Amino acid sequence: MGQYTQSIGRLIDELTKLPGIGEKTAQRLTFFLLKTPEQDVSNLAKALLDVKQHVRYCSICGNLTEQDPCAICQDAKRKRNVICVVEEPNDLYAIERTKEFYGLYHVLMGALSPLEGVGPEDIRIQELLRRLQQEPCDEIIIATNPNVEGEATAMYLAKLLKPLGMKITRIAHGIPVGGDLEYADEITMTRALEGRREL
Amino acid sequence: MGQYTQSIGRLIDELTKLPGIGEKTAQRLTFFLLKTPEQDVSNLAKALLDVKQHVRYCSICGNLTEQDPCAICQDAKRKRNVICVVEEPNDLYAIERTKEFYGLYHVLMGALSPLEGVGPEDIRIQELLRRLQQEPCDEIIIATNPNVEGEATAMYLAKLLKPLGMKITRIAHGIPVGGDLEYADEITMTRALEGRREL
Repeated sequence: MGQYTQSIGRLIDELTKLPGIGEKTAQRLTFFLLKTPEQDVSNLAKALLDVKQHVRYCSICGNLTEQDPCAICQDAKRKRNVICVVEEPNDLYAIERTKEFYGLYHVLMGALSPLEGVGPEDIRIQELLRRLQQEPCDEIIIATNPNVEGEATAMYLAKLLKPLGMKITRIAHGIPVGGDLEYADEITMTRALEGRREL
Repeated sequence: MGQYTQSIGRLIDELTKLPGIGEKTAQRLTFFLLKTPEQDVSNLAKALLDVKQHVRYCSICGNLTEQDPCAICQDAKRKRNVICVVEEPNDLYAIERTKEFYGLYHVLMGALSPLEGVGPEDIRIQELLRRLQQEPCDEIIIATNPNVEGEATAMYLAKLLKPLGMKITRIAHGIPVGGDLEYADEITMTRALEGRREL
């Protein structure tokens, strides 16, 4: 990169730190930004700084928010007796997009992973227990990801929460809608069979 | 995107304006940035603003630079009697990376494209003529892209510059090194045959 000017080299370096952006993409983005009106680039820079300044985690559910508690926790129209437990805020958004869930959330900020040294004290499990003590609910829907870490977290939570007397459910695994049986892996297929329902 | 906070929505919007970054990638980048230390995000924002503030075009060759004239035009060790004409600054960098060219450059800032309404007066052809009047050279290497616009520009320049008495050359087209004859398109193959050299 010897021939780039200092500012160009630095921007390429900073962009390559982003996930999925390699050297070539960073170069392409930089040359695009050099041709972009200054106002647009300064809007992007401002949006970057704003997001770090204004966005906080909700002290109740752990969702991303600009006011605390977040809009979902404050929403009087939502059922307060069902809590859906997810790993990350983007999982919460994925469920919100269905417009089919009217309960509250609890964001764990991760999943149990002994290999990566993530134990129960590293994710927001204590916060969930404390929350349930203050405001008990009827059902906990565990919507962690269907991978090793997510399943381990689901099992751990189920064992921990069952004695408290509430219903504990797990989202269904199976063939995705629009998916093709031919291409389903064996584990998904097994889960789809296990989870079959009477029509 | 109704559920995102205002700052998050705005950052996603700004990121989707970049080339090759769709809604999903913008979301992924935004969630990554939310987890990134504030200092790193502010470094990225600063790099964006710096590049717009400090980087200018060289008044002689049109290369991107932070001082005018650019380092290449100022370099006393470079041959001043050969000028390589390219479309964009990144083409210049591609040639510089070979470390095999020691002449000067002229960046056109585009290529002729009647379909998109880009005529000779829209790219830096006048600047090249003026430059050659002030400081004549022995050879012009035309290194525009090997596509319709690049070839049209090369033909136009050759016709325009030949009467001035200097040597006009065009970079070679052919099978890329490491490429496979089987997968070469017919036009590239034709050019490779036409451009054959005695061993």
